[in-house]
Amino acid sequence: MKKLFAEFFGTFWLVFGGCGSAVFAAGIPDLGIGFMGVALAFGLTVLTMAYAVGHISGGHFNPAVSFGLWAGGRFSGRDLIPYIISQCVGAVAAASVLYTIASGKAGFMIDNTQAGAFASNGYGAFSPSGYSLAACFIAEFFLTLFFLLIIMGATDKFSNGKFAGIAIGLGLTLIHLISIPITNTSVNPARSLSQAVFVGGEPLGQLWLFWVAPIAGALSGGFIYKFVLQKNDEV
Amino acid sequence: MKKLFAEFFGTFWLVFGGCGSAVFAAGIPDLGIGFMGVALAFGLTVLTMAYAVGHISGGHFNPAVSFGLWAGGRFSGRDLIPYIISQCVGAVAAASVLYTIASGKAGFMIDNTQAGAFASNGYGAFSPSGYSLAACFIAEFFLTLFFLLIIMGATDKFSNGKFAGIAIGLGLTLIHLISIPITNTSVNPARSLSQAVFVGGEPLGQLWLFWVAPIAGALSGGFIYKFVLQKNDEV
Amino acid sequence: MKKLFAEFFGTFWLVFGGCGSAVFAAGIPDLGIGFMGVALAFGLTVLTMAYAVGHISGGHFNPAVSFGLWAGGRFSGRDLIPYIISQCVGAVAAASVLYTIASGKAGFMIDNTQAGAFASNGYGAFSPSGYSLAACFIAEFFLTLFFLLIIMGATDKFSNGKFAGIAIGLGLTLIHLISIPITNTSVNPARSLSQAVFVGGEPLGQLWLFWVAPIAGALSGGFIYKFVLQKNDEV
Amino acid sequence: MKKLFAEFFGTFWLVFGGCGSAVFAAGIPDLGIGFMGVALAFGLTVLTMAYAVGHISGGHFNPAVSFGLWAGGRFSGRDLIPYIISQCVGAVAAASVLYTIASGKAGFMIDNTQAGAFASNGYGAFSPSGYSLAACFIAEFFLTLFFLLIIMGATDKFSNGKFAGIAIGLGLTLIHLISIPITNTSVNPARSLSQAVFVGGEPLGQLWLFWVAPIAGALSGGFIYKFVLQKNDEV
Repeated sequence: MKKLFAEFFGTFWLVFGGCGSAVFAAGIPDLGIGFMGVALAFGLTVLTMAYAVGHISGGHFNPAVSFGLWAGGRFSGRDLIPYIISQCVGAVAAASVLYTIASGKAGFMIDNTQAGAFASNGYGAFSPSGYSLAACFIAEFFLTLFFLLIIMGATDKFSNGKFAGIAIGLGLTLIHLISIPITNTSVNPARSLSQAVFVGGEPLGQLWLFWVAPIAGALSGGFIYKFVLQKNDEV
Repeated sequence: MKKLFAEFFGTFWLVFGGCGSAVFAAGIPDLGIGFMGVALAFGLTVLTMAYAVGHISGGHFNPAVSFGLWAGGRFSGRDLIPYIISQCVGAVAAASVLYTIASGKAGFMIDNTQAGAFASNGYGAFSPSGYSLAACFIAEFFLTLFFLLIIMGATDKFSNGKFAGIAIGLGLTLIHLISIPITNTSVNPARSLSQAVFVGGEPLGQLWLFWVAPIAGALSGGFIYKFVLQKNDEV
Repeated sequence: MKKLFAEFFGTFWLVFGGCGSAVFAAGIPDLGIGFMGVALAFGLTVLTMAYAVGHISGGHFNPAVSFGLWAGGRFSGRDLIPYIISQCVGAVAAASVLYTIASGKAGFMIDNTQAGAFASNGYGAFSPSGYSLAACFIAEFFLTLFFLLIIMGATDKFSNGKFAGIAIGLGLTLIHLISIPITNTSVNPARSLSQAVFVGGEPLGQLWLFWVAPIAGALSGGFIYKFVLQKNDEV
Repeated sequence: MKKLFAEFFGTFWLVFGGCGSAVFAAGIPDLGIGFMGVALAFGLTVLTMAYAVGHISGGHFNPAVSFGLWAGGRFSGRDLIPYIISQCVGAVAAASVLYTIASGKAGFMIDNTQAGAFASNGYGAFSPSGYSLAACFIAEFFLTLFFLLIIMGATDKFSNGKFAGIAIGLGLTLIHLISIPITNTSVNPARSLSQAVFVGGEPLGQLWLFWVAPIAGALSGGFIYKFVLQKNDEV
């Protein structure tokens, strides 16, 4: 039960900090943090929570990660559904607090005809730089695949496991540095869900891609690490 | 006694580095460090002092953190008042050095009708982006709550304690990435006090929020970690 | 064999993340990550893969590094060619995925008369800021030399080896902070090869420098560490 | 003897990377790294060399640090002069390579009537933002004092010594985030010397401050840590 609370708080923080920095701070003229600050913020949500509650739940905070770790033989299928529910509830709770705060500024409204509104993900006309559905799918697939290679490798018993929180957190920063202009970066179905629910419209209609591509990439990453990279005596 | 000196120097450095980077370097045209640089600076003050004097005093540098750790059962109530006094004295001392340096530039003056003057915190008309009192309260409450979850978790005996300085310091960076536009980011009553004293006027009148909200959030975070997340055999 | 897969995936990620961030995210108006974001991205590719697969292959991801570690007595000459082939194949594979994604934006084309097109390296007219061949050679030589000093030193048995991934990764970030305006930063022949192949034209004709200078610098760095800095009882 | 080579290479890298990033990359329109990138670069030179050669020489790379560690009882007075000579020779060597590379761009010249030319330090008319001599002295004094508190504390036997390279390196980043607009940030007499030699004119005449203030601050920091913060049984 503590595991599920840990996933709830961790995913809450991921959405609150990552999407929150995008909503409140990215686009301020001259002084704003830009895509780089948002990339750093997403990564630091995972880095901080990995050291804070990683010892309780393993620190997934992401349904695709839970799927990928199951594929890689590091996570029990029995816990998959409860973990994903906790993550999604935490993400939506965080988005509701973000919405409440954002509403405290005069003139706030979510314009769901605009790419990236309320930190939502999108492709085609809803890709920040206008990338096609196929390009967005490939990007999300490969980025999540490599995210899982990093996670599987950094937590491998032959690796320096204590540094995993740094490697995985900053890995998520790196992923955002590459791909915010492509899809506004998901690699995390819970983070996409929570924002899409509040945005509605076409971005909600595009949510499927941000479940399918990350989970497919994560499963591939988990399998590749297990069968291609992991030492045999671990299997 | 060494503990109180450690808190004095640590909180001095937090205000000198964090507020100093905001005062001297944030708004320089083209080359300035912006909100992102200020966020990094605040976090690095804590990261550096955590490794420098954390082994002496525990490295709070923040009255809200001291309250939260007391709520979480990690800090003796007997030390609460001395710690907070040391923190506030260190913060005000740092602000006075900042004021002295800033006065060495021709034309320097603090305009206390402007949001964020001399790195002060504020809400409503004194919120950098104009967020309401309620939005600012909620933001400070939740950010300090999660700051305590990070601190309690990263220093948990089942966690990788040696990395706590990194997680907590970069956690403070993350908090600033989200919320400088909202309240100019406090989560630390001593840091708010020192700047408000030099700014005076309405920002000084708003100081109450930056004591009440962070301390309420910190107490909540300490309790939540202790009763919801911490393993039973630790209680 | 697992070693070669590790080098393949690691170099794929270096090119995908480093060159990808440059292609997709550096130049977005107002919000783009700029040279600093690209510098961070390159460094984080190495930091993340060092902790993910460094325990498998040693984590070179760069032909110059393999040469330098051989010169420094830390890597067998027998593995040199297979490692370099894996690295180059991984780099080209990553560039092909980058090309596919980039093609998904309307109007995409590589203009190989422009410095830095598709994240390619160059000197003279193809140096981002117009530095001469000699200046570019010197820069690549010294930067790779020091990159090897960092690698040799951080993995020295008398050093804190577990932190090597952080030191080496952030060392690559530092190298990019200095030199993107000079050569668009190579210090890695595989990374230069992959982009030049897709760009063609004059940048492809300049590829020789980004093999010769980094490898010469890396050999010098490996020798200097071994003979000048390393303790005698290690030889 | 290896110690002196380590200090030579370390200080070379500090000047090459820190001042090099300022000269080549800070002011590029739109994409440049700005003061924040320069701050990160200076810090990463120390972080990388601390892990690379810190086990050989202790990793000072800075005459003020050597003085401060002597004051704090951590460094033998016998080694003080040789260390400082190695540091200054390394710094000047790096500046000469920087000058050579910079000369490879058409139209390069050092305008020594301009604040911060060739990354030089200055006060008054040569302070980047025009701070007075007194303000600049106070800033350099306090920043170096706290730099020594960080160094003494992070390498204290009761501290997590393996993280010292991170704390000290990022501490130097923080110092630059605060003070580049004030003095272009020295806290290191060798780094000031090397640039002043190539710039000449008034900046060379101002060099005295960047020896006196950092060394005075470092001595104060060393004494304060030793007598106020360090546990008695260590003395």
